[in-house]
Amino acid sequence: MLIDCGEGTQSQLRRYKVRFQDIQHIFISHLHGDHFFGLPGLIATFRLLGRHHPLHVYGPQGMKDAVMGMLLAGQTHIDYPLFFHEVDTRVPQVLFEDQGLIVRTFPLNHRVPTQGFVFEQKAGPRHIRRSMIAETLPKYAYDLLKSGRDYISEQGDCYSAEAYTKAGTPTRKYAFCSDTQYDAKIVPHIQGVDLLYHESTFLNTELSLAKKTGHSTAEQAGMIASMARVETLLLGHFSTRYPSTDVFATEAKLHFDRVLCAYEGMELSL
Amino acid sequence: MLIDCGEGTQSQLRRYKVRFQDIQHIFISHLHGDHFFGLPGLIATFRLLGRHHPLHVYGPQGMKDAVMGMLLAGQTHIDYPLFFHEVDTRVPQVLFEDQGLIVRTFPLNHRVPTQGFVFEQKAGPRHIRRSMIAETLPKYAYDLLKSGRDYISEQGDCYSAEAYTKAGTPTRKYAFCSDTQYDAKIVPHIQGVDLLYHESTFLNTELSLAKKTGHSTAEQAGMIASMARVETLLLGHFSTRYPSTDVFATEAKLHFDRVLCAYEGMELSL
Repeated sequence: MLIDCGEGTQSQLRRYKVRFQDIQHIFISHLHGDHFFGLPGLIATFRLLGRHHPLHVYGPQGMKDAVMGMLLAGQTHIDYPLFFHEVDTRVPQVLFEDQGLIVRTFPLNHRVPTQGFVFEQKAGPRHIRRSMIAETLPKYAYDLLKSGRDYISEQGDCYSAEAYTKAGTPTRKYAFCSDTQYDAKIVPHIQGVDLLYHESTFLNTELSLAKKTGHSTAEQAGMIASMARVETLLLGHFSTRYPSTDVFATEAKLHFDRVLCAYEGMELSL
Repeated sequence: MLIDCGEGTQSQLRRYKVRFQDIQHIFISHLHGDHFFGLPGLIATFRLLGRHHPLHVYGPQGMKDAVMGMLLAGQTHIDYPLFFHEVDTRVPQVLFEDQGLIVRTFPLNHRVPTQGFVFEQKAGPRHIRRSMIAETLPKYAYDLLKSGRDYISEQGDCYSAEAYTKAGTPTRKYAFCSDTQYDAKIVPHIQGVDLLYHESTFLNTELSLAKKTGHSTAEQAGMIASMARVETLLLGHFSTRYPSTDVFATEAKLHFDRVLCAYEGMELSL
Protein backbone atom coordinates (compact mmCIF):
# COMPACT_ATOMS: atom_id res chain seq x y z
CA MET A 1 0.00 0.00 0.00
CA LEU A 2 1.38 3.33 -1.06
CA ILE A 3 0.15 6.61 0.41
CA ASP A 4 0.45 9.59 -1.93
CA CYS A 5 2.53 9.63 -5.07
CA GLY A 6 4.37 12.87 -5.79
CA GLU A 7 6.56 13.39 -8.84
CA GLY A 8 9.57 11.09 -8.70
CA THR A 9 7.93 8.43 -6.49
CA GLN A 10 9.00 5.70 -8.91
CA SER A 11 12.63 6.85 -8.66
CA GLN A 12 12.42 6.77 -4.88
CA LEU A 13 10.86 3.28 -4.92
CA ARG A 14 13.83 2.10 -6.99
CA ARG A 15 16.29 3.88 -4.72
CA TYR A 16 14.89 2.19 -1.62
CA LYS A 17 14.42 -1.18 -3.36
CA VAL A 18 10.66 -1.40 -2.94
CA ARG A 19 9.35 -4.11 -5.27
CA PHE A 20 6.96 -2.50 -7.75
CA GLN A 21 4.74 -5.56 -8.00
CA ASP A 22 4.11 -5.51 -4.24
CA ILE A 23 2.05 -2.33 -4.60
CA GLN A 24 -1.64 -3.24 -4.87
CA HIS A 25 -3.34 -0.12 -3.51
CA ILE A 26 -2.47 3.56 -3.76
CA PHE A 27 -4.18 6.10 -1.52
CA ILE A 28 -4.07 9.74 -2.64
CA SER A 29 -4.82 12.34 0.04
CA HIS A 30 -5.42 15.28 -2.31
CA LEU A 31 -4.66 16.52 -5.81
CA HIS A 32 -1.79 18.91 -5.21
CA GLY A 33 1.25 18.12 -7.32
CA ASP A 34 3.54 16.95 -4.53
CA HIS A 35 0.94 14.30 -3.65
CA PHE A 36 -0.17 12.94 -7.04
CA PHE A 37 1.97 14.10 -10.01
CA GLY A 38 3.88 10.80 -9.86
CA LEU A 39 0.76 8.76 -10.57
CA PRO A 40 0.76 8.80 -14.41
CA GLY A 41 4.41 7.73 -14.49
CA LEU A 42 4.03 4.97 -11.92
CA ILE A 43 0.92 3.59 -13.64
CA ALA A 44 2.75 3.63 -17.02
CA THR A 45 5.84 1.98 -15.53
CA PHE A 46 3.73 -0.86 -14.08
CA ARG A 47 2.60 -1.50 -17.66
CA LEU A 48 6.17 -1.49 -19.01
CA LEU A 49 7.10 -4.00 -16.29
CA GLY A 50 4.42 -6.36 -17.63
CA ARG A 51 2.04 -6.07 -14.70
CA HIS A 52 -0.99 -8.38 -14.81
CA HIS A 53 -2.49 -8.08 -11.33
CA PRO A 54 -4.95 -5.33 -10.43
CA LEU A 55 -4.06 -1.88 -9.15
CA HIS A 56 -6.52 0.10 -7.06
CA VAL A 57 -6.13 3.85 -6.71
CA TYR A 58 -8.22 5.78 -4.16
CA GLY A 59 -8.38 9.56 -4.31
CA PRO A 60 -10.51 12.69 -4.57
CA GLN A 61 -12.90 13.35 -7.43
CA GLY A 62 -11.18 14.53 -10.61
CA MET A 63 -8.18 12.25 -10.14
CA LYS A 64 -9.09 9.75 -12.86
CA ASP A 65 -9.65 12.29 -15.64
CA ALA A 66 -6.40 14.10 -14.87
CA VAL A 67 -4.29 10.95 -14.77
CA MET A 68 -5.91 9.34 -17.81
CA GLY A 69 -5.54 12.65 -19.69
CA MET A 70 -1.77 12.41 -19.32
CA LEU A 71 -1.66 8.74 -20.31
CA LEU A 72 -3.99 9.03 -23.30
CA ALA A 73 -2.22 12.14 -24.66
CA GLY A 74 0.61 9.75 -25.51
CA GLN A 75 -1.73 6.89 -26.46
CA THR A 76 -0.54 4.91 -23.45
CA HIS A 77 -3.25 2.29 -23.01
CA ILE A 78 -3.10 0.39 -19.72
CA ASP A 79 -3.52 -3.33 -20.28
CA TYR A 80 -3.67 -4.54 -16.67
CA PRO A 81 -6.76 -4.15 -14.44
CA LEU A 82 -6.68 -0.57 -13.17
CA PHE A 83 -9.42 0.70 -10.88
CA PHE A 84 -9.87 4.30 -9.83
CA HIS A 85 -11.99 4.77 -6.71
CA GLU A 86 -12.99 8.41 -6.45
CA VAL A 87 -13.96 9.41 -2.93
CA ASP A 88 -16.15 12.16 -1.51
CA THR A 89 -13.51 13.39 0.92
CA ARG A 90 -16.12 15.09 3.13
CA VAL A 91 -17.52 11.75 4.30
CA PRO A 92 -15.68 9.39 6.68
CA GLN A 93 -15.85 5.91 5.16
CA VAL A 94 -14.19 2.53 4.74
CA LEU A 95 -12.04 2.45 1.59
CA PHE A 96 -10.68 -1.07 1.82
CA GLU A 97 -11.16 -4.16 3.95
CA ASP A 98 -9.82 -7.67 3.88
CA GLN A 99 -9.30 -10.42 6.47
CA GLY A 100 -6.44 -8.66 8.18
CA LEU A 101 -6.77 -4.95 7.57
CA ILE A 102 -9.26 -2.13 7.31
CA VAL A 103 -8.50 1.26 5.76
CA ARG A 104 -10.68 4.21 6.73
CA THR A 105 -10.69 7.76 5.46
CA PHE A 106 -11.78 10.97 7.15
CA PRO A 107 -11.83 14.64 6.09
CA LEU A 108 -8.83 16.90 6.54
CA ASN A 109 -8.95 20.68 6.32
CA HIS A 110 -6.78 22.02 3.50
CA ARG A 111 -7.21 24.39 0.56
CA VAL A 112 -8.63 21.64 -1.67
CA PRO A 113 -10.60 18.44 -0.86
CA THR A 114 -8.21 16.37 1.26
CA GLN A 115 -8.54 13.14 3.20
CA GLY A 116 -6.60 11.43 5.95
CA PHE A 117 -6.26 7.66 6.30
CA VAL A 118 -6.24 5.18 9.16
CA PHE A 119 -4.79 1.72 8.55
CA GLU A 120 -6.08 -0.63 11.21
CA GLN A 121 -4.94 -4.19 11.60
CA LYS A 122 -7.86 -6.38 12.60
CA ALA A 123 -7.65 -8.28 15.87
CA GLY A 124 -6.03 -11.65 15.22
CA PRO A 125 -7.68 -14.89 16.43
CA ARG A 126 -7.42 -15.65 20.17
CA HIS A 127 -4.74 -18.19 21.12
CA ILE A 128 -5.89 -21.55 22.53
CA ARG A 129 -4.37 -22.45 25.93
CA ARG A 130 -3.61 -25.99 24.72
CA SER A 131 -2.13 -27.13 28.03
CA MET A 132 -5.55 -26.69 29.68
CA ILE A 133 -7.36 -28.97 27.25
CA ALA A 134 -6.79 -32.66 28.01
CA GLU A 135 -8.92 -34.35 25.34
CA THR A 136 -8.94 -33.65 21.59
CA LEU A 137 -11.77 -31.35 20.53
CA PRO A 138 -13.25 -31.22 17.02
CA LYS A 139 -11.75 -28.57 14.71
CA TYR A 140 -14.85 -26.35 14.81
CA ALA A 141 -14.55 -26.16 18.59
CA TYR A 142 -11.10 -24.60 18.27
CA ASP A 143 -12.37 -22.14 15.63
CA LEU A 144 -15.22 -21.18 17.95
CA LEU A 145 -12.85 -20.57 20.88
CA LYS A 146 -10.37 -18.63 18.69
CA SER A 147 -13.19 -16.33 17.60
CA GLY A 148 -13.94 -15.59 21.28
CA ARG A 149 -17.10 -17.72 21.68
CA ASP A 150 -17.67 -20.55 24.18
CA TYR A 151 -17.85 -24.24 23.17
CA ILE A 152 -20.15 -26.79 24.80
CA SER A 153 -19.32 -30.38 23.96
CA GLU A 154 -21.89 -33.16 23.28
CA GLN A 155 -21.25 -34.36 26.84
CA GLY A 156 -22.27 -30.92 28.09
CA ASP A 157 -18.76 -29.80 29.12
CA CYS A 158 -18.39 -26.04 28.83
CA TYR A 159 -15.19 -24.55 27.44
CA SER A 160 -15.36 -20.80 27.89
CA ALA A 161 -13.29 -18.67 25.54
CA GLU A 162 -12.35 -16.49 28.49
CA ALA A 163 -10.73 -19.42 30.34
CA TYR A 164 -9.42 -21.54 27.48
CA THR A 165 -7.92 -18.85 25.27
CA LYS A 166 -5.85 -15.73 25.63
CA ALA A 167 -5.99 -12.55 23.51
CA GLY A 168 -4.62 -12.74 19.98
CA THR A 169 -1.75 -10.67 18.62
CA PRO A 170 -2.39 -7.01 19.48
CA THR A 171 -3.61 -4.89 16.57
CA ARG A 172 -1.73 -1.90 15.24
CA LYS A 173 -3.07 1.35 13.85
CA TYR A 174 -1.34 3.92 11.67
CA ALA A 175 -2.92 7.28 10.85
CA PHE A 176 -1.74 9.52 8.03
CA CYS A 177 -2.71 13.19 8.12
CA SER A 178 -1.25 14.81 5.06
CA ASP A 179 -1.70 18.50 4.35
CA THR A 180 -4.13 20.01 6.83
CA GLN A 181 -4.52 23.02 9.01
CA TYR A 182 -5.01 22.50 12.75
CA ASP A 183 -8.41 20.87 13.16
CA ALA A 184 -9.47 19.17 16.41
CA LYS A 185 -12.35 17.49 14.54
CA ILE A 186 -9.90 14.87 13.27
CA VAL A 187 -9.11 13.66 16.82
CA PRO A 188 -11.90 11.04 17.13
CA HIS A 189 -10.73 9.42 13.87
CA ILE A 190 -7.14 8.97 15.00
CA GLN A 191 -7.75 8.26 18.68
CA GLY A 192 -5.14 5.96 20.22
CA VAL A 193 -3.26 5.01 17.05
CA ASP A 194 0.22 3.55 17.48
CA LEU A 195 1.73 5.94 14.96
CA LEU A 196 0.35 9.27 13.81
CA TYR A 197 1.92 10.98 10.82
CA HIS A 198 0.86 14.63 10.98
CA GLU A 199 2.20 17.34 8.72
CA SER A 200 4.05 20.25 10.28
CA THR A 201 4.98 22.52 7.43
CA PHE A 202 5.74 25.49 9.68
CA LEU A 203 6.81 26.55 13.15
CA ASN A 204 4.64 28.78 15.32
CA THR A 205 6.62 31.83 14.19
CA GLU A 206 4.77 31.35 10.86
CA LEU A 207 1.37 30.67 12.42
CA SER A 208 -0.50 33.15 10.23
CA LEU A 209 1.16 31.78 7.10
CA ALA A 210 0.18 28.27 8.22
CA LYS A 211 -3.46 29.36 8.53
CA LYS A 212 -3.39 31.17 5.20
CA THR A 213 -1.96 28.18 3.30
CA GLY A 214 -3.98 25.51 5.11
CA HIS A 215 -1.01 23.94 6.89
CA SER A 216 -0.07 23.18 10.51
CA THR A 217 2.73 24.19 12.83
CA ALA A 218 4.75 21.65 14.79
CA GLU A 219 3.13 22.84 18.02
CA GLN A 220 -0.32 22.23 16.56
CA ALA A 221 0.70 18.72 15.48
CA GLY A 222 1.86 18.10 19.05
CA MET A 223 -1.50 19.29 20.39
CA ILE A 224 -3.37 16.92 18.06
CA ALA A 225 -1.15 13.98 19.13
CA SER A 226 -1.73 14.81 22.77
CA MET A 227 -5.52 15.08 22.42
CA ALA A 228 -5.69 11.83 20.44
CA ARG A 229 -3.44 10.05 22.98
CA VAL A 230 -1.44 8.39 20.24
CA GLU A 231 1.64 6.30 20.93
CA THR A 232 4.13 8.12 18.65
CA LEU A 233 3.94 11.28 16.54
CA LEU A 234 5.81 11.41 13.23
CA LEU A 235 6.27 14.89 11.78
CA GLY A 236 6.88 15.66 8.10
CA HIS A 237 6.22 18.00 5.12
CA PHE A 238 8.73 20.52 6.47
CA SER A 239 9.11 23.86 4.74
CA THR A 240 12.63 24.23 3.36
CA ARG A 241 12.90 27.67 4.98
CA TYR A 242 14.14 26.04 8.20
CA PRO A 243 17.75 24.85 8.37
CA SER A 244 17.05 21.58 10.24
CA THR A 245 14.13 19.44 11.37
CA ASP A 246 15.18 19.32 15.04
CA VAL A 247 13.33 22.57 15.71
CA PHE A 248 10.05 20.92 14.71
CA ALA A 249 10.50 18.11 17.26
CA THR A 250 11.39 20.63 19.96
CA GLU A 251 8.27 22.68 19.28
CA ALA A 252 5.93 19.65 19.13
CA LYS A 253 7.35 18.44 22.47
CA LEU A 254 5.73 21.43 24.18
CA HIS A 255 2.61 19.24 24.15
CA PHE A 256 3.71 15.68 23.42
CA ASP A 257 6.82 13.70 24.24
CA ARG A 258 7.22 10.89 21.73
CA VAL A 259 8.05 12.76 18.53
CA LEU A 260 9.97 11.62 15.43
CA CYS A 261 10.90 13.67 12.38
CA ALA A 262 10.52 11.97 9.00
CA TYR A 263 13.44 11.84 6.57
CA GLU A 264 13.83 10.36 3.09
CA GLY A 265 14.09 6.58 3.22
CA MET A 266 12.96 6.32 6.86
CA GLU A 267 11.66 2.89 7.87
CA LEU A 268 9.52 2.29 10.96
CA SER A 269 8.11 -0.92 12.41
CA LEU A 270 4.88 -0.89 14.39
CA MET B 1 15.91 26.28 -23.40
CA LEU B 2 14.93 22.87 -22.16
CA ILE B 3 14.28 19.96 -24.51
CA ASP B 4 11.82 17.37 -23.19
CA CYS B 5 10.72 17.14 -19.58
CA GLY B 6 10.30 13.62 -18.22
CA GLU B 7 9.19 12.88 -14.68
CA GLY B 8 11.79 14.13 -12.21
CA THR B 9 13.25 16.80 -14.49
CA GLN B 10 12.94 19.38 -11.72
CA SER B 11 14.94 17.16 -9.36
CA GLN B 12 17.66 16.77 -11.99
CA LEU B 13 17.76 20.53 -12.61
CA ARG B 14 18.35 21.02 -8.89
CA ARG B 15 20.95 18.27 -8.80
CA TYR B 16 22.94 19.85 -11.63
CA LYS B 17 22.39 23.41 -10.35
CA VAL B 18 20.54 24.71 -13.39
CA ARG B 19 18.86 28.00 -12.45
CA PHE B 20 15.10 27.58 -12.82
CA GLN B 21 14.52 31.19 -13.86
CA ASP B 22 16.92 30.79 -16.79
CA ILE B 23 14.44 28.50 -18.53
CA GLN B 24 12.30 30.51 -20.96
CA HIS B 25 11.35 27.90 -23.56
CA ILE B 26 10.55 24.20 -23.27
CA PHE B 27 10.42 22.01 -26.39
CA ILE B 28 8.54 18.71 -26.08
CA SER B 29 9.29 16.13 -28.77
CA HIS B 30 6.29 13.86 -28.10
CA LEU B 31 3.77 12.96 -25.43
CA HIS B 32 5.21 9.74 -24.03
CA GLY B 33 5.69 9.86 -20.28
CA ASP B 34 9.48 9.86 -20.25
CA HIS B 35 9.39 13.02 -22.37
CA PHE B 36 6.65 15.13 -20.77
CA PHE B 37 5.36 13.78 -17.40
CA GLY B 38 7.62 16.28 -15.61
CA LEU B 39 5.85 19.26 -17.17
CA PRO B 40 2.99 19.78 -14.66
CA GLY B 41 5.44 19.67 -11.75
CA LEU B 42 7.96 22.02 -13.31
CA ILE B 43 5.25 24.51 -14.29
CA ALA B 44 3.83 24.39 -10.73
CA THR B 45 7.27 24.79 -9.18
CA PHE B 46 7.96 27.89 -11.28
CA ARG B 47 4.84 29.37 -9.69
CA LEU B 48 5.96 28.46 -6.16
CA LEU B 49 9.29 30.14 -6.89
CA GLY B 50 7.42 33.37 -7.65
CA ARG B 51 8.07 33.42 -11.38
CA HIS B 52 6.89 36.54 -13.22
CA HIS B 53 8.48 36.24 -16.66
CA PRO B 54 6.84 34.27 -19.46
CA LEU B 55 7.27 30.57 -20.14
CA HIS B 56 6.74 29.16 -23.62
CA VAL B 57 6.08 25.45 -24.10
CA TYR B 58 6.14 23.93 -27.60
CA GLY B 59 4.79 20.44 -28.16
CA PRO B 60 2.35 18.17 -30.01
CA GLN B 61 -1.38 18.69 -30.00
CA GLY B 62 -3.08 17.49 -26.83
CA MET B 63 -0.24 18.66 -24.59
CA LYS B 64 -2.04 21.67 -23.12
CA ASP B 65 -5.21 19.85 -22.07
CA ALA B 66 -3.25 17.04 -20.44
CA VAL B 67 -0.95 19.34 -18.48
CA MET B 68 -3.69 21.79 -17.47
CA GLY B 69 -5.87 18.82 -16.43
CA MET B 70 -3.27 17.84 -13.84
CA LEU B 71 -2.83 21.40 -12.58
CA LEU B 72 -6.52 22.27 -12.40
CA ALA B 73 -7.43 18.99 -10.63
CA GLY B 74 -5.65 20.49 -7.63
CA GLN B 75 -6.88 24.04 -8.34
CA THR B 76 -3.32 25.11 -9.16
CA HIS B 77 -3.80 28.34 -11.08
CA ILE B 78 -0.69 29.63 -12.84
CA ASP B 79 -0.22 33.35 -12.23
CA TYR B 80 2.74 34.02 -14.54
CA PRO B 81 2.43 34.28 -18.36
CA LEU B 82 2.33 30.69 -19.64
CA PHE B 83 1.99 30.02 -23.35
CA PHE B 84 1.39 26.62 -24.90
CA HIS B 85 2.31 26.40 -28.57
CA GLU B 86 0.80 23.23 -30.00
CA VAL B 87 2.52 22.10 -33.17
CA ASP B 88 1.42 19.99 -36.12
CA THR B 89 4.43 17.67 -35.94
CA ARG B 90 4.00 16.58 -39.58
CA VAL B 91 5.03 20.00 -40.90
CA PRO B 92 8.63 21.32 -40.74
CA GLN B 93 8.47 24.86 -39.38
CA VAL B 94 10.17 27.59 -37.38
CA LEU B 95 9.14 27.45 -33.71
CA PHE B 96 11.20 30.30 -32.36
CA GLU B 97 13.43 33.07 -33.66
CA ASP B 98 15.25 35.99 -32.11
CA GLN B 99 18.31 38.04 -33.04
CA GLY B 100 20.76 35.27 -32.28
CA LEU B 101 18.97 31.97 -32.66
CA ILE B 102 16.45 30.12 -34.73
CA VAL B 103 14.71 26.90 -33.65
CA ARG B 104 13.23 24.67 -36.32
CA THR B 105 11.20 21.50 -36.01
CA PHE B 106 10.82 18.57 -38.38
CA PRO B 107 8.88 15.29 -38.27
CA LEU B 108 10.32 12.16 -36.67
CA ASN B 109 8.95 8.68 -37.16
CA HIS B 110 7.74 7.14 -33.91
CA ARG B 111 4.57 5.44 -32.64
CA VAL B 112 2.91 8.79 -31.82
CA PRO B 113 3.30 12.28 -33.35
CA THR B 114 6.93 13.21 -32.69
CA GLN B 115 9.16 16.07 -33.72
CA GLY B 116 12.89 16.72 -33.84
CA PHE B 117 14.50 20.12 -33.27
CA VAL B 118 17.40 22.05 -34.78
CA PHE B 119 18.87 24.95 -32.80
CA GLU B 120 20.79 27.19 -35.16
CA GLN B 121 22.84 30.16 -34.06
CA LYS B 122 22.51 32.98 -36.55
CA ALA B 123 25.66 34.22 -38.29
CA GLY B 124 27.18 37.07 -36.27
CA PRO B 125 28.15 40.43 -37.95
CA ARG B 126 31.39 40.47 -39.99
CA HIS B 127 34.43 41.93 -38.23
CA ILE B 128 35.89 45.23 -39.59
CA ARG B 129 39.62 45.09 -40.42
CA ARG B 130 40.25 48.41 -38.65
CA SER B 131 43.97 48.51 -39.46
CA MET B 132 43.13 48.81 -43.18
CA ILE B 133 40.93 51.89 -42.76
CA ALA B 134 42.99 55.10 -42.36
CA GLU B 135 40.24 57.73 -42.07
CA THR B 136 37.16 57.72 -39.84
CA LEU B 137 34.01 56.51 -41.64
CA PRO B 138 30.46 57.41 -40.59
CA LYS B 139 28.76 54.83 -38.32
CA TYR B 140 26.37 53.60 -41.02
CA ALA B 141 29.36 52.72 -43.18
CA TYR B 142 30.61 50.30 -40.54
CA ASP B 143 27.13 48.80 -40.15
CA LEU B 144 26.95 48.32 -43.93
CA LEU B 145 30.34 46.57 -44.01
CA LYS B 146 29.50 44.39 -40.98
CA SER B 147 26.35 43.22 -42.74
CA GLY B 148 28.49 42.15 -45.72
CA ARG B 149 27.64 44.97 -48.12
CA ASP B 150 30.08 47.42 -49.78
CA TYR B 151 30.35 51.12 -48.85
CA ILE B 152 31.08 53.93 -51.32
CA SER B 153 32.04 57.23 -49.71
CA GLU B 154 30.88 60.68 -50.85
CA GLN B 155 34.33 61.06 -52.45
CA GLY B 156 33.65 57.90 -54.48
CA ASP B 157 36.09 55.65 -52.60
CA CYS B 158 34.91 52.04 -52.60
CA TYR B 159 35.24 49.94 -49.44
CA SER B 160 34.31 46.37 -50.33
CA ALA B 161 33.06 44.16 -47.52
CA GLU B 162 35.19 41.35 -48.92
CA ALA B 163 38.40 43.35 -48.48
CA TYR B 164 37.64 45.45 -45.40
CA THR B 165 35.96 42.82 -43.19
CA LYS B 166 36.49 39.22 -42.24
CA ALA B 167 33.82 36.61 -41.44
CA GLY B 168 31.96 36.91 -38.13
CA THR B 169 31.92 34.33 -35.38
CA PRO B 170 31.08 30.95 -36.91
CA THR B 171 27.55 29.72 -36.22
CA ARG B 172 26.76 26.50 -34.39
CA LYS B 173 23.93 24.03 -34.93
CA TYR B 174 22.56 21.39 -32.61
CA ALA B 175 19.99 18.82 -33.72
CA PHE B 176 17.92 16.73 -31.33
CA CYS B 177 16.28 13.56 -32.64
CA SER B 178 14.40 12.00 -29.78
CA ASP B 179 12.47 8.76 -30.19
CA THR B 180 12.41 7.75 -33.84
CA GLN B 181 12.88 4.73 -35.99
CA TYR B 182 15.51 4.85 -38.73
CA ASP B 183 14.28 7.38 -41.28
CA ALA B 184 16.57 8.86 -43.95
CA LYS B 185 13.98 11.59 -44.60
CA ILE B 186 15.30 13.49 -41.58
CA VAL B 187 18.77 13.89 -43.14
CA PRO B 188 18.12 17.17 -45.04
CA HIS B 189 16.91 18.79 -41.80
CA ILE B 190 20.04 17.95 -39.81
CA GLN B 191 22.63 18.31 -42.60
CA GLY B 192 26.02 19.46 -41.33
CA VAL B 193 25.09 20.20 -37.72
CA ASP B 194 27.92 20.44 -35.20
CA LEU B 195 26.22 18.08 -32.80
CA LEU B 196 23.54 15.52 -33.55
CA TYR B 197 21.74 13.85 -30.67
CA HIS B 198 20.11 10.72 -32.08
CA GLU B 199 18.41 8.07 -30.03
CA SER B 200 19.79 4.54 -30.09
CA THR B 201 17.54 2.49 -27.87
CA PHE B 202 18.77 -0.85 -29.22
CA LEU B 203 21.67 -2.65 -30.84
CA ASN B 204 21.30 -4.38 -34.19
CA THR B 205 20.71 -7.72 -32.45
CA GLU B 206 17.29 -6.22 -31.56
CA LEU B 207 16.62 -4.74 -35.00
CA SER B 208 13.13 -6.21 -35.31
CA LEU B 209 12.20 -5.00 -31.83
CA ALA B 210 13.50 -1.55 -32.77
CA LYS B 211 11.23 -1.49 -35.83
CA LYS B 212 8.26 -2.76 -33.86
CA THR B 213 8.61 -0.14 -31.12
CA GLY B 214 9.54 2.76 -33.41
CA HIS B 215 13.12 3.08 -32.15
CA SER B 216 16.61 3.01 -33.71
CA THR B 217 19.69 0.88 -33.31
CA ALA B 218 23.14 2.39 -32.72
CA GLU B 219 24.19 1.31 -36.22
CA GLN B 220 21.23 3.15 -37.73
CA ALA B 221 22.11 6.29 -35.76
CA GLY B 222 25.65 6.03 -37.16
CA MET B 223 24.26 5.76 -40.70
CA ILE B 224 22.15 8.89 -40.22
CA ALA B 225 25.16 10.81 -38.82
CA SER B 226 27.26 9.72 -41.78
CA MET B 227 24.64 10.68 -44.39
CA ALA B 228 24.07 14.07 -42.72
CA ARG B 229 27.85 14.69 -42.47
CA VAL B 230 27.51 16.01 -38.94
CA GLU B 231 30.49 16.94 -36.82
CA THR B 232 29.74 14.78 -33.75
CA LEU B 233 27.10 12.15 -32.97
CA LEU B 234 25.71 11.91 -29.44
CA LEU B 235 23.85 8.68 -28.65
CA GLY B 236 21.26 8.29 -25.90
CA HIS B 237 17.95 6.70 -24.76
CA PHE B 238 19.67 3.37 -24.17
CA SER B 239 17.62 0.34 -23.23
CA THR B 240 18.61 -0.89 -19.78
CA ARG B 241 18.91 -4.44 -21.15
CA TYR B 242 22.54 -3.75 -22.11
CA PRO B 243 25.17 -3.74 -19.37
CA SER B 244 27.13 -0.71 -20.63
CA THR B 245 26.87 2.05 -23.23
CA ASP B 246 30.27 1.32 -24.85
CA VAL B 247 28.67 -1.26 -27.13
CA PHE B 248 26.47 1.45 -28.67
CA ALA B 249 29.48 3.60 -29.59
CA THR B 250 31.26 0.57 -31.06
CA GLU B 251 28.26 -0.28 -33.24
CA ALA B 252 27.67 3.31 -34.43
CA LYS B 253 31.36 3.54 -35.39
CA LEU B 254 30.76 1.00 -38.14
CA HIS B 255 29.53 4.02 -40.10
CA PHE B 256 30.72 7.14 -38.31
CA ASP B 257 33.79 7.93 -36.23
CA ARG B 258 33.03 10.80 -33.88
CA VAL B 259 30.58 9.22 -31.45
CA LEU B 260 29.79 10.13 -27.84
CA CYS B 261 27.43 8.33 -25.44
CA ALA B 262 25.23 10.52 -23.25
CA TYR B 263 25.20 10.09 -19.47
CA GLU B 264 23.31 11.84 -16.68
CA GLY B 265 24.71 15.29 -16.04
CA MET B 266 26.83 15.38 -19.22
CA GLU B 267 27.85 18.88 -20.35
CA LEU B 268 29.03 19.66 -23.88
CA SER B 269 30.26 22.92 -25.41
CA LEU B 270 29.78 23.62 -29.09
